[in-house]
Amino acid sequence: MATVKLWSDAEVDGVPKLKAVFDDIRTTRKSDFVNNFWRGLCNQPDLLERTWANLKEVMVKEGALDPLTKELIYMAVSAVNGCSYCVHSHTAAARAKGMSAAQHEELLAVIGMAMQTNGIVTALQISVDKEFLV
Amino acid sequence: MATVKLWSDAEVDGVPKLKAVFDDIRTTRKSDFVNNFWRGLCNQPDLLERTWANLKEVMVKEGALDPLTKELIYMAVSAVNGCSYCVHSHTAAARAKGMSAAQHEELLAVIGMAMQTNGIVTALQISVDKEFLV
Amino acid sequence: MATVKLWSDAEVDGVPKLKAVFDDIRTTRKSDFVNNFWRGLCNQPDLLERTWANLKEVMVKEGALDPLTKELIYMAVSAVNGCSYCVHSHTAAARAKGMSAAQHEELLAVIGMAMQTNGIVTALQISVDKEFLV
Amino acid sequence: MATVKLWSDAEVDGVPKLKAVFDDIRTTRKSDFVNNFWRGLCNQPDLLERTWANLKEVMVKEGALDPLTKELIYMAVSAVNGCSYCVHSHTAAARAKGMSAAQHEELLAVIGMAMQTNGIVTALQISVDKEFLV
Amino acid sequence: MATVKLWSDAEVDGVPKLKAVFDDIRTTRKSDFVNNFWRGLCNQPDLLERTWANLKEVMVKEGALDPLTKELIYMAVSAVNGCSYCVHSHTAAARAKGMSAAQHEELLAVIGMAMQTNGIVTALQISVDKEFLV
Amino acid sequence: MATVKLWSDAEVDGVPKLKAVFDDIRTTRKSDFVNNFWRGLCNQPDLLERTWANLKEVMVKEGALDPLTKELIYMAVSAVNGCSYCVHSHTAAARAKGMSAAQHEELLAVIGMAMQTNGIVTALQISVDKEFLV
Repeated sequence: MATVKLWSDAEVDGVPKLKAVFDDIRTTRKSDFVNNFWRGLCNQPDLLERTWANLKEVMVKEGALDPLTKELIYMAVSAVNGCSYCVHSHTAAARAKGMSAAQHEELLAVIGMAMQTNGIVTALQISVDKEFLV
Repeated sequence: MATVKLWSDAEVDGVPKLKAVFDDIRTTRKSDFVNNFWRGLCNQPDLLERTWANLKEVMVKEGALDPLTKELIYMAVSAVNGCSYCVHSHTAAARAKGMSAAQHEELLAVIGMAMQTNGIVTALQISVDKEFLV
Repeated sequence: MATVKLWSDAEVDGVPKLKAVFDDIRTTRKSDFVNNFWRGLCNQPDLLERTWANLKEVMVKEGALDPLTKELIYMAVSAVNGCSYCVHSHTAAARAKGMSAAQHEELLAVIGMAMQTNGIVTALQISVDKEFLV
Repeated sequence: MATVKLWSDAEVDGVPKLKAVFDDIRTTRKSDFVNNFWRGLCNQPDLLERTWANLKEVMVKEGALDPLTKELIYMAVSAVNGCSYCVHSHTAAARAKGMSAAQHEELLAVIGMAMQTNGIVTALQISVDKEFLV
Repeated sequence: MATVKLWSDAEVDGVPKLKAVFDDIRTTRKSDFVNNFWRGLCNQPDLLERTWANLKEVMVKEGALDPLTKELIYMAVSAVNGCSYCVHSHTAAARAKGMSAAQHEELLAVIGMAMQTNGIVTALQISVDKEFLV
Repeated sequence: MATVKLWSDAEVDGVPKLKAVFDDIRTTRKSDFVNNFWRGLCNQPDLLERTWANLKEVMVKEGALDPLTKELIYMAVSAVNGCSYCVHSHTAAARAKGMSAAQHEELLAVIGMAMQTNGIVTALQISVDKEFLV
C-alpha cells in the first residue's frame, strides 16, 4: 500500500549507508526486527539517517520522562494526527515497555476527554484567562 | 474574543444548577479560581454539568496513570489540535502538578518527533507490519 | 494580524472586477457589511471571484438541507480545523439564521462527542464492520 | 486491524458489566447488531460504560436538533478528523435515519466548501471582524 | 470500501451530464484512465461538475507556479490532513509530472520539518513577532 | 502570550550554548533579526540546538527543490495544522525569497482545492485505485 518501495534486508545490506543505520537500530533495540517505516525511508538515505539519529536522541536516551510516558505521548499525538501506522507501531512499543491494560484505558480516556474539550473550546473560541499568561 | 458570554461569579450564583458545578470545581481543586472554559459553558448548563463530571472522572480520580502524566498527554493532544486555550490551561495545570523544565523540554521533543514521523509516514503511506497486528 | 492587506471599500470601488463581487455579496446578503475574508481575498481577484461563486452555489442556493443546518455543519468543520476566524463568522451567520441557544448547546455537545469517539476509535484502530461497507 | 481484541457476544455475555451495556445498546437501538467500536471498548469497561452513557444522552435523547442533523454534524467532524471508521458508521447511521442522496450531496458540498475556506483563511490569517465579537 | 457506489464507464455513459465531465477529464489529461474519486462523485452530479471545473482551473491552467510544484503542495496538504487516497493519487500525479527521487526526499524532509516545528510552536504558543505583521 | 519566557539577546549572550546557536542563525541568514521561535526554545537548549541543526539541513542546504518551493510547502503544512505563528513566519520568509503576488494567489488556490477534495474524499472513503499502488 505504501507509495514507495519497502527495502528487504538483502537490498539494505548492499548499501553501506543504509546497512549502518539498520545495524544501529538492531543494536539499540536489541532485536532483529526492523519495521516498515525504516524500510520505506531507505529510498531517502539522508532522511533515514537523520530521522533515526533524532528518534534515538528523543526516545532512547535516558531523560526526565520515563520511556513508557514518552510512548504514551507519542501514541496520543499519532491518534490526533490520524496516523494509522504510527498508532500501531507505538501501541506495540508501549506494550513492549510495560503498558498495562489499565494504563491503556486511562490513556484512551484522556485522549477522548482532551479531544472533546478541545472541540468545544475551539467552537466557543474561549479567551485565555490572564492567570494562564506567563 | 469568545463567541459566547463568559459568566461572572455573581451571575453564576443566581442559577443553582450552575452554582452547584462551580462549588464542586472549587472544592475539588481546592482553589477559588474558576477558568473561562467553565464560564463559557454556563450558557449550556447540561453540557457544563456533564463535561465537569467526565473531566473529574478522567483527570481527578486516582488511577493507573499519575496526574502529571495525564496532563502531559492532554497538552500533547491540545497542541496537535491547535487549541490555544487548552494548551495554555493545561500547561498551567501541568506546572501546578510539578512539571519540571526538563520534563517540559522532553514533552516538546516527543511532540515534535511524533509530528515529524507522523507527517512522513502519512506522506509515504507505509503499510502496517504484520508484527503489529493483534 | 492578517498576512495580507485587507481592502477598504474605497480601494475595492476602484477595481471593477472586485467591485462586481462586492456588489453581488451585498445584494445576495441584503446587507452592506462585507467581512474581512472577502477583503483579504481582494489581493487574489480570481480566487475571490471563484470562491464567492462557489459559496453562493453551496450556501445560498435553496437545496436539500436548510440554511441553518448548513451553517451548523460549517461551524463543526471550522471548529475541528481550528479556524478561529471561520468559527466566529459562521457562528454569527448561524445566529442570524435563527440558531437558538438550545441548538447551539446541542451542536457543541455533538462536536464534543464526535471528537471524543474519533480520538478513541483512531487510538484503537477499530476495523470497519462489514455491515457498514457499500 | 484493531490494536485491541474485539469481543464476541459470547465473551461479552460472560461479564455482567459489559453485558448490561450491550443489552442497553440493543434495546435503545431496537437492533441486535452491535458494531465493532463497542466490542473494542470492552477491554476498557469503565470507558465503555461512560462513552455509551454520553452518546445516548447526546445522540439519542430528544433535543433541539433532529436526529438526522446530529448525524450529519457527526459525519462532518469525523471526516475532518480523518476517522475512517467513524465516517463509515455515521454514514450508515445517517442513512438509517433517512439521509437522502440529495442531502448527502449537500453535506459533501458544505464540508468541501468549509475545508476550502478554512484553509485559505488560515493561510491568510484573516483578523476577526469586530462585528463578530460578542 | 467507499461509502458510495463507484460508477463504471458503462453507467457513466448512460447519463449525459456525467459523460460530459468524464469526456473532459480524458481529453484534458490525455489519458483514458479516470480515477475512483470522480467515479464516487457521480452520485453527486452537481458537485462532480463543480469540483472538476475548479480543479481544472487551479491545477491544469498555466499559472505562476509550475505543475509539479502545485502537485508537491497538494501532496503536503493531503499528508497533513491524513487523506490516504489523496496522498496516493497526487504522489502518482507528481511522478507523472517528473518528480525525481531527490525531490521526493526533500518534500518529505520539509513536511517532517514543518510538522515538527508546527507542533513545538503550538505547544509553546509562541507570540507572533511584530516584524511579521503586515 | 507564549507559555514560556522569550529570551532577550542579553540573556542569550550569557549562556555560551545558546549564543552559539544564535550566532549561527545570524550568520546563516545574514541578518541580525532572530525571531521569537528561537527565543522560546532557549528554555530547552538541547531542543534548540537540534531543531536549528535540522532546519538548516532541510531548509538552507542546497538541494533538489529551490528555497522558495520549500517555503511554499512549509506554508501549506502550517496552514493545515492551523499554526498561526508558522504561517506568519514562513509567509514572511517566502516573500523574502521572492514569492510574487501571483504565486501567493496560486498557493492559496492549491491549498483551498486540496482541502476541499481531501474533505470530500475522506467523507466518501474513496478506495485507492489499483493503478496508484506501487
